Amino acid sequence: MSIEAVIPFKPSNPKSRLSSVMTVQERELFAEAMLHDVVIALTEAGCRPCILSTKTLHCSHARVSVCDEELNPALNSILAQRNEPLLIIMADLPLVNADVIRRVTGTARDIGIGPGRGGGTNAIFIKDCSRFHVDYYGASFMKHAGIAKESGLSVEVIDSFRLYTDVDEPDDLVELFIHGTGYARQFLESSGFSLRIEKGRVGISRNTG
Amino acid sequence: MSIEAVIPFKPSNPKSRLSSVMTVQERELFAEAMLHDVVIALTEAGCRPCILSTKTLHCSHARVSVCDEELNPALNSILAQRNEPLLIIMADLPLVNADVIRRVTGTARDIGIGPGRGGGTNAIFIKDCSRFHVDYYGASFMKHAGIAKESGLSVEVIDSFRLYTDVDEPDDLVELFIHGTGYARQFLESSGFSLRIEKGRVGISRNTG
Repeated sequence: MSIEAVIPFKPSNPKSRLSSVMTVQERELFAEAMLHDVVIALTEAGCRPCILSTKTLHCSHARVSVCDEELNPALNSILAQRNEPLLIIMADLPLVNADVIRRVTGTARDIGIGPGRGGGTNAIFIKDCSRFHVDYYGASFMKHAGIAKESGLSVEVIDSFRLYTDVDEPDDLVELFIHGTGYARQFLESSGFSLRIEKGRVGISRNTG
Repeated sequence: MSIEAVIPFKPSNPKSRLSSVMTVQERELFAEAMLHDVVIALTEAGCRPCILSTKTLHCSHARVSVCDEELNPALNSILAQRNEPLLIIMADLPLVNADVIRRVTGTARDIGIGPGRGGGTNAIFIKDCSRFHVDYYGASFMKHAGIAKESGLSVEVIDSFRLYTDVDEPDDLVELFIHGTGYARQFLESSGFSLRIEKGRVGISRNTG
């Protein structure tokens, strides 16, 4: 039986730390392209993606559930009512592929966590949802490891840079250029972005002409 | 038979981008602590570590070879003479463990590459050394993928954040605090560094008192 994967998503004014390189309309399209890449990886891995969106949204490959609650209470009410495993995965992970999704959901432990750079939690797979709750924001990776420990649940840390690389800042676009192959990378290219290598450092530049 | 692993190392004035948070003496000790963590992971994975150092160095768990040539010619003359597989791995990867080393050396392809953040090559495992040469600096990950392609060698990209996280800048110390367990993390703690969580962002602070 396929595993349900919840993807929290905020369509309005997303990715504000990219404001210096993209307009708000571009950021909205870019966020949707990244979401699309995550949905495709999940589908290829045999999961059932369900987007938990703060407003109405159309996506041909995923169920969409609209919810204007805050992230933690929204997810925790889902967890409390659930008696099947659940994967929660962020929408800004355009490097993920089916292989790494399978590594997360295939964990032999009670919980599989894919940390994000800077202490976040980019993916978490929970086998027994009634024994766990989430606490996102800040150093959520450590908080989630602590909650699991308190509940006597074993944890596997999934060692993947594809899962670890959330795209928040202009520097992160470099990673997408180097390692991405999907919609989000295509969006960057068609918007005039390219890799620039100067004095041994790799960055991005943009041709707006 | 165990696989030889070359670790290029520069003991003098290393990690200059950490100058804002560490003295030159501290940077030297910190670089050695990170090197030590890499050597231990290699040893645990059954490799034979060999440090290619720009000056004399003592290390109880690794062979040390002193060489003042530039990185690329030094490594390429080793490759040209070699008819056994070789792993080349950087010294500033304090998060690596034996599991990820085994994933690199266990690749079914001709070459296994562990990319670094920003387009670098943090580890590369080469089965047939005579058919490959290295070209470090800049976007070396892409250069190495290109060299492999030209030589008709297949490549596996090793998907690991432990291998991907090289420690160059103060922000990288956050990752070491969260995910590190070895000498380099111990050095940070004993030098008064600690994690600081402020307004949802994770950083480091230092108690010099």
